[in-house]
Amino acid sequence: MQQDNHQIPDTSMRYKLREIIFGTDTKAGRYFDIALIICIIISVSLVFLDTMAGIHEQYGEIIRIFEWIFTVIFTIEFALRLYCSAHPVSYARSFYGVVDLLSVLPSYLALFFPGANFTLVIRILRLFRIFRVLKLLRYLSEGNVLLRAMLQSGRKVFIFFFSVSLIIMVLGAIMYVVEGPENGFTSIPKSIYWTIVTITTVGYGDITPGTTLGQVIAAFTMLLGYSIIAIPTGILTVEISQEMGRNKDLRRCSNCLKKGHENNADYCDHCGSELENDV
Amino acid sequence: MQQDNHQIPDTSMRYKLREIIFGTDTKAGRYFDIALIICIIISVSLVFLDTMAGIHEQYGEIIRIFEWIFTVIFTIEFALRLYCSAHPVSYARSFYGVVDLLSVLPSYLALFFPGANFTLVIRILRLFRIFRVLKLLRYLSEGNVLLRAMLQSGRKVFIFFFSVSLIIMVLGAIMYVVEGPENGFTSIPKSIYWTIVTITTVGYGDITPGTTLGQVIAAFTMLLGYSIIAIPTGILTVEISQEMGRNKDLRRCSNCLKKGHENNADYCDHCGSELENDV
Amino acid sequence: MQQDNHQIPDTSMRYKLREIIFGTDTKAGRYFDIALIICIIISVSLVFLDTMAGIHEQYGEIIRIFEWIFTVIFTIEFALRLYCSAHPVSYARSFYGVVDLLSVLPSYLALFFPGANFTLVIRILRLFRIFRVLKLLRYLSEGNVLLRAMLQSGRKVFIFFFSVSLIIMVLGAIMYVVEGPENGFTSIPKSIYWTIVTITTVGYGDITPGTTLGQVIAAFTMLLGYSIIAIPTGILTVEISQEMGRNKDLRRCSNCLKKGHENNADYCDHCGSELENDV
Amino acid sequence: MQQDNHQIPDTSMRYKLREIIFGTDTKAGRYFDIALIICIIISVSLVFLDTMAGIHEQYGEIIRIFEWIFTVIFTIEFALRLYCSAHPVSYARSFYGVVDLLSVLPSYLALFFPGANFTLVIRILRLFRIFRVLKLLRYLSEGNVLLRAMLQSGRKVFIFFFSVSLIIMVLGAIMYVVEGPENGFTSIPKSIYWTIVTITTVGYGDITPGTTLGQVIAAFTMLLGYSIIAIPTGILTVEISQEMGRNKDLRRCSNCLKKGHENNADYCDHCGSELENDV
Repeated sequence: MQQDNHQIPDTSMRYKLREIIFGTDTKAGRYFDIALIICIIISVSLVFLDTMAGIHEQYGEIIRIFEWIFTVIFTIEFALRLYCSAHPVSYARSFYGVVDLLSVLPSYLALFFPGANFTLVIRILRLFRIFRVLKLLRYLSEGNVLLRAMLQSGRKVFIFFFSVSLIIMVLGAIMYVVEGPENGFTSIPKSIYWTIVTITTVGYGDITPGTTLGQVIAAFTMLLGYSIIAIPTGILTVEISQEMGRNKDLRRCSNCLKKGHENNADYCDHCGSELENDV
Repeated sequence: MQQDNHQIPDTSMRYKLREIIFGTDTKAGRYFDIALIICIIISVSLVFLDTMAGIHEQYGEIIRIFEWIFTVIFTIEFALRLYCSAHPVSYARSFYGVVDLLSVLPSYLALFFPGANFTLVIRILRLFRIFRVLKLLRYLSEGNVLLRAMLQSGRKVFIFFFSVSLIIMVLGAIMYVVEGPENGFTSIPKSIYWTIVTITTVGYGDITPGTTLGQVIAAFTMLLGYSIIAIPTGILTVEISQEMGRNKDLRRCSNCLKKGHENNADYCDHCGSELENDV
Repeated sequence: MQQDNHQIPDTSMRYKLREIIFGTDTKAGRYFDIALIICIIISVSLVFLDTMAGIHEQYGEIIRIFEWIFTVIFTIEFALRLYCSAHPVSYARSFYGVVDLLSVLPSYLALFFPGANFTLVIRILRLFRIFRVLKLLRYLSEGNVLLRAMLQSGRKVFIFFFSVSLIIMVLGAIMYVVEGPENGFTSIPKSIYWTIVTITTVGYGDITPGTTLGQVIAAFTMLLGYSIIAIPTGILTVEISQEMGRNKDLRRCSNCLKKGHENNADYCDHCGSELENDV
Repeated sequence: MQQDNHQIPDTSMRYKLREIIFGTDTKAGRYFDIALIICIIISVSLVFLDTMAGIHEQYGEIIRIFEWIFTVIFTIEFALRLYCSAHPVSYARSFYGVVDLLSVLPSYLALFFPGANFTLVIRILRLFRIFRVLKLLRYLSEGNVLLRAMLQSGRKVFIFFFSVSLIIMVLGAIMYVVEGPENGFTSIPKSIYWTIVTITTVGYGDITPGTTLGQVIAAFTMLLGYSIIAIPTGILTVEISQEMGRNKDLRRCSNCLKKGHENNADYCDHCGSELENDV
């Protein structure tokens, strides 16, 4: 974002606002970020707490007022971002632009359904309100080792999940035939649901095999799920290991050009100048 | 498969069909594959959905019609594969030949049991119908790193599972003696089933220890299962790591013969010519 | 601790006591440690057992007597530590000083609430009594590989948990809308509790999805939780691997200065002199 | 064992028997081993099946006869091992000697309690019968990579489990205070049992938190258990990796002395002579 600063002529105030709202380098920018994070967390917590019957009855009115205060704050934030962004259209279309819009729109839309308390429409609008939590994603430094390791291992992990899906479908169908509706396996989709519950070692116990043969297949399914978890773990471990090695190679001192610094090194171990931290 | 093309004289049409049906290099071949994958997925989904009581009542007739359409499509596919295969007999005997046959046969066999609705025979025939899903295995590139890593670690993983089986049997028998039939441990096989449910951390809760001593042994079983999962994970991680290193060594540029390319490299980093992607 | 011995003048007896109580090098010091560990384990076990109704009725009186014996022992230990410590104030303020105080204080405080049997105050005082178990922490050698590996991977693991928290909140809110109070998802916080139970593959089964869409989302949640466990495992494996390599580099023979000894080597493999074991 | 063959004078027949019973190099020795493994598996399976009410009623008599046949077979085996062993006393005292004795003794002892059907004594004697399964341990090649990796990582894994135990005890006591007997947390030991069920992600659901604070602590316990599993996995992965590297170094060709062969190599890659397989 910072590189675009000088592409179009800016009024001094618009430029300054952009530094504060989009940037993290100035003191004001950091204060703005922290205030925003606190607003997001309180706002989302209120949405969550309001769904609890006891709290809704006692504090429902206060929560409604705070709800509107936060809606106004986020509306102002959205307007300011639109105003001071170097490319307002591309911001509005970006992932964060849509998230920022979605975090205020439902509150205004709810005004059009005033009498319809507790209906599905209100419920879904309330759901959209919790997407405010996605505003926090902005503060997760992207381009990190984890994401790259996951993308690197994507193809292998896909093959793994494809194979597991085949196994789940076949086992689900077998269990439907073996156990049948009388033991809770009322259909193949439900039987597949049971297989997923079992193979991932979740094991709710809402559906359990009743026949001896069913229990033998269930035992096999558990042991399978218990052991194949090793495969994605192995893939990701190797990828993270390679990615961190590659990362180390990339960490080059801008002063003496020595590379290969540790991921958590803050200073060059050859000339002592500070290293940029972009792991 | 492609290498066999010139071994026996082919009519031009048979050769072309083979390119489409068995090959993936031509445009027509890719379209054929995608169409087939869609047919398999829809067909298997219908078999699954038909087992749900509500859907069976409302859409049972339509599903039956689609069922026959897909049966005819897969029958034609099977006939074409037999016709254009360079070695029809070895195709018919191969894993995929048997799967292709099993994915159409049950529908025809069901005609011989017309009145017997919802009997075990029909149920098992329906089960065979979902083996169509195995046709998808054709599209999983074989010879991949995962399979080789698993085969490499086979002996160690076998020793691990053999040891775990011994532990499960001994713990199962001990729990049968400690808890007894009054707490749901009605027999040693059932007690072993409980031990597997517990050691794999599935934990249905359909059978739970009632005595204090039983709960102590159960706690020990859980902690054991929780920690020994580390062993197959460790084995597979090391094997995948070695296999990927070996794989990198094998990736040789066919132009300048430089080897040791990254698993996800598409071009030789020495001369820039494209690399074959056979990871 | 040993280095401080000569900083302030000590009476011979105070010095000797310090060797026994804080040190582990002398025979008397080791006997003192073992006796203390046994006292801690028995004392905590008695607190635990006393909460079982049957045992409380039969042996409640004997446990109360032993409880007071251990309180006196730990009081004497605390007094001796204060007396013979080189810096009594910094000991009293240290983590272990506070733990030592907390392990005797509740018993004395309980004397002021004599009639209030089974009230919340007594309950919480009893809770503090089990903090005696933290006295055992003294005997875990600090500065070990595990702790450093965890600190090293802290930032990555934090990003992982932050991302997982976002996923849990979004999935929890979606499930609240999809399932609703009629299936046990009475509020978003309860729905988030269910999501954590499911994503960590615990799966109590006290709340389970009733609708088909809810079961589809549940299945997705399980598969997600089942696979993302690979990420922290991968991070920690790589960090432990690096930490152990670094550790090996640090193991230097004090005689011939050769470094790079194995973590479990007891003697230098070059000159045969004993190595210090500080892994 | 083979090295002791010539230490004491043997009759030709005793020597031959030892080759068959203790050795695995001759054809007769392998046949003996396979026959014994089959006997063990069938015998243990019969003990297991006999505990199932339906099978006991119908086939109880036949199982009793087979039980005696196997007892006689194992008695003869034990007698022969004692007779042909080079050091009968050290065999009788060894782990396998005790297991061999324990696998026949309970059947003879049961003769002294003839009328006491289904009493605790008979039950425990029956339990000992399943120790026959431990005879199979003989066929697990010892000195393997896994065992050494586990021993190597022993100290670190112990520290891990010690820390986890402290966490479990503290969390168990907190949950007892927070939830109390009215929610099933009737005592601290029961509360600790619940904590183990939760932290290992087993999650039976026989005891679940009822209060909101209890559910928050439960959620924390689950996330903790879900993530700390990474620690022993990381330790073991690193140890297995090192152990396999060390193993590779040890694999030396007895012909050309080249070392560093792959763990699964059967022939020396330098001179082509066969390698001994002792991984």
